[in-house]
Amino acid sequence: MSTEGPIVLNGFTMNAVSHVNYGLWRHPADESYRYNTVDHWVRLARILDDGGFDALFIADALGLLDTYGGGPEASLRTGTQSPVSDPLPLVPALAAQTSHLGFGVTVSTTYEHPYLLARKFTTLDHLTGGRVAWNIVTSQLDSAARNLGLAQQIPHDERYDRADEFLEVVYKLWEASWEDDAVVRDAERGVYTDPAKVHPINHAGRWFTVPDAHVSEPSPQRTPVLFQAGGSPRGQRFAARHAEVVFVAGADAEGVRRRVAETRALAAEFGRDPASLKFVTALSVVVDDTEAGARAKLAEYQSYFSAEGALAHYSASTGVDFADGDLEQTLDRVIDYRDTDSNRSLLSMFADGRRPWTLREALAPRDGFGRTPNFVGTPAGVADRLERWLAESDTDGINLIQIVSPDSWREFAELVVPELRRRGRVRPRPAGPATLRERLQGSPHVRDDHPAAQYRAARYRVPASSA
Amino acid sequence: MSTEGPIVLNGFTMNAVSHVNYGLWRHPADESYRYNTVDHWVRLARILDDGGFDALFIADALGLLDTYGGGPEASLRTGTQSPVSDPLPLVPALAAQTSHLGFGVTVSTTYEHPYLLARKFTTLDHLTGGRVAWNIVTSQLDSAARNLGLAQQIPHDERYDRADEFLEVVYKLWEASWEDDAVVRDAERGVYTDPAKVHPINHAGRWFTVPDAHVSEPSPQRTPVLFQAGGSPRGQRFAARHAEVVFVAGADAEGVRRRVAETRALAAEFGRDPASLKFVTALSVVVDDTEAGARAKLAEYQSYFSAEGALAHYSASTGVDFADGDLEQTLDRVIDYRDTDSNRSLLSMFADGRRPWTLREALAPRDGFGRTPNFVGTPAGVADRLERWLAESDTDGINLIQIVSPDSWREFAELVVPELRRRGRVRPRPAGPATLRERLQGSPHVRDDHPAAQYRAARYRVPASSA
Repeated sequence: MSTEGPIVLNGFTMNAVSHVNYGLWRHPADESYRYNTVDHWVRLARILDDGGFDALFIADALGLLDTYGGGPEASLRTGTQSPVSDPLPLVPALAAQTSHLGFGVTVSTTYEHPYLLARKFTTLDHLTGGRVAWNIVTSQLDSAARNLGLAQQIPHDERYDRADEFLEVVYKLWEASWEDDAVVRDAERGVYTDPAKVHPINHAGRWFTVPDAHVSEPSPQRTPVLFQAGGSPRGQRFAARHAEVVFVAGADAEGVRRRVAETRALAAEFGRDPASLKFVTALSVVVDDTEAGARAKLAEYQSYFSAEGALAHYSASTGVDFADGDLEQTLDRVIDYRDTDSNRSLLSMFADGRRPWTLREALAPRDGFGRTPNFVGTPAGVADRLERWLAESDTDGINLIQIVSPDSWREFAELVVPELRRRGRVRPRPAGPATLRERLQGSPHVRDDHPAAQYRAARYRVPASSA
Repeated sequence: MSTEGPIVLNGFTMNAVSHVNYGLWRHPADESYRYNTVDHWVRLARILDDGGFDALFIADALGLLDTYGGGPEASLRTGTQSPVSDPLPLVPALAAQTSHLGFGVTVSTTYEHPYLLARKFTTLDHLTGGRVAWNIVTSQLDSAARNLGLAQQIPHDERYDRADEFLEVVYKLWEASWEDDAVVRDAERGVYTDPAKVHPINHAGRWFTVPDAHVSEPSPQRTPVLFQAGGSPRGQRFAARHAEVVFVAGADAEGVRRRVAETRALAAEFGRDPASLKFVTALSVVVDDTEAGARAKLAEYQSYFSAEGALAHYSASTGVDFADGDLEQTLDRVIDYRDTDSNRSLLSMFADGRRPWTLREALAPRDGFGRTPNFVGTPAGVADRLERWLAESDTDGINLIQIVSPDSWREFAELVVPELRRRGRVRPRPAGPATLRERLQGSPHVRDDHPAAQYRAARYRVPASSA
């Protein structure tokens, strides 16, 4: 699945002035300072839509990054994911101005109730004509937990147990509650919905009690396309069970390949076709007509790189305050990577298969940009590197991050996409309207082997309420 | 304030096939069946924007109406507010296609955390250029409480105490946390935000603990324009304290006038200028070039009216199941109106100052449409009725509901607005971009006598954390 055929091609960013392109908001060409305007996002979405991308994928975190130096000062000063705005309200505005681009929105299961979240995504799926994906996050920043009135995070594994039940609830609301022909809209008979075809879900579990029917009528995809990134053993099980697109972090192809194989094996244990899961990694690209031009561009970008911004982010991701840290220490000494998803995935990014990096190396890995692979070169050179990366890591696509917005995406669309198209690695533009899931797997609804499918109204009998 | 000068002119609807125009989705001209598309809403928003309206105001309830007959069958069948979609994601898409229209979104304080809600509205205010209002709801349907895992509603007065603290938290986040010049965006010095000008709010109260700073940078209005409707004594106090626009239900001018006077008196007790509060009522209009034409149109509309839909709504509003009710009983016999806001306001709608109506009368009050006043006639006749209504009820504007969408709003914009403009009762179109609050009261920010103003960063000193 990784050596031929169209790849999954996503733009990956955040509703903030800087995502993981630390310091680059200072570059004269960067327009991220306009992140609080619809215009800025429409411009970006159209570049992706016209450029053959499948989806715009928006990360999120509900809190300032405040581990580094014991406060948010560094992240605020460098604009690193702080301040941050809500990604969700952007989606219908961008769908209205694009023709096929999908939209992946990050929403946590930890601070949101399934009955509310189900309606939110059904509404987004309606308003986008079935082009929405949910990036399921179970963890959040400590700062978010603190400000939402929880003394601390729910313990890691328990959070995933709760998330499993959360998904059971929303699957029932999306798949089991309203039959396909429940909405009849018969003006003559005066029947908008046939009530006999709307079923209360009668869910009573450990975490949630949801007796009633879904409040919204079925949307084109019913269940949004499900994205997930989980690096820990428990997180990997969760992804193997639920995710249709799995985001794997890592700059080391071998490590990524191992994680992909593990997750596919787990998916098979859950009765899913392992080949149906799509794996993507985040990376950046610096492309130019000539190799020398690309190298010069990279050097110019690097002059804007903010090590303080990077450290503020790494500290928040790992819970380790690097402000007073020794830059020569190796990262396995300071990060307890067994503990959390993000630590494990962070460490996998900071190693090249031989030995863990020092913090200094982590600040300038490989081609010298951020903590993800960065491919620098001519269109053909970048396409070669990308194809090799996909083959070596056994992944199916990429989340392309910006170095400079929107130039990084525009140059990829204008220079690299035509080259990838020639090689059959970019999906043809759909002839008519299509849902995101149809683009990715041919059908608007979850596959029969996906856990949501067992709740399909056609075959699922809602249990009677025990009340 | 009610006999001259521009009125507050809102379109009032719901993200559903039928709001309070029971059964009218069956009318051939009604386009509400397209409520799940952005196109439908853009069309409506442009009619209001071009037609001189101040805002589009979207009601909401998170649940199917299921009191009538003990289940949701009647509301589903008649399409009465069931199914219902999330109103919030519509807003930026509509702001992008309009030039000055404001957007009022209903969000409950009961099922939403202030730290999340604050970011949501800051984002909407950014993306709309300062054109957003929050319709603060404290109560919700029992069905919502049930599905969100609460055995029953929080007791009424306690809900308002909690809402008061909720507003204290969001005021601190919106007004006190980020100073006006906190975001400096200085590329040369590498400073996006000056951290010294971002303050943690250190809120520790009975209901909420929010130690940190707001996650988002200040938006044009900071605090969105605040709408509220509270009929009970405690709800009225809440409105008097916080609301900038107060929605008063009622078909009886005397009753509305009394409520307005009471609320203004309470506002004065809270140190606010009573004249600064704007009061609006919901009503519908059937207008035509001739009186006979308008009457004929009304008769035709009435032929689509669904009494079952109306009863399903009245039952949900009052908690009284009217399915087996005697249509000749008067409403004070079946509704305990002392109990809840909505019952009190419902009963005030179902009385004409002399005696309570029977249920049969409630189904066909006054000019025979729904439970709000309905003005039928020529443009001049409607304008006369409207001006008299505003004077008699001492209100400042209206929430115009649809009978048929979007015709009801378009005909009002095309026929009645020019007449009102001649009389100086419709605001001139703003020359340039303006926030909603500037339109309504001349300044983008809350008035000095509003409770949010005490938290303004310029004068408010955030208390040190007790931790």
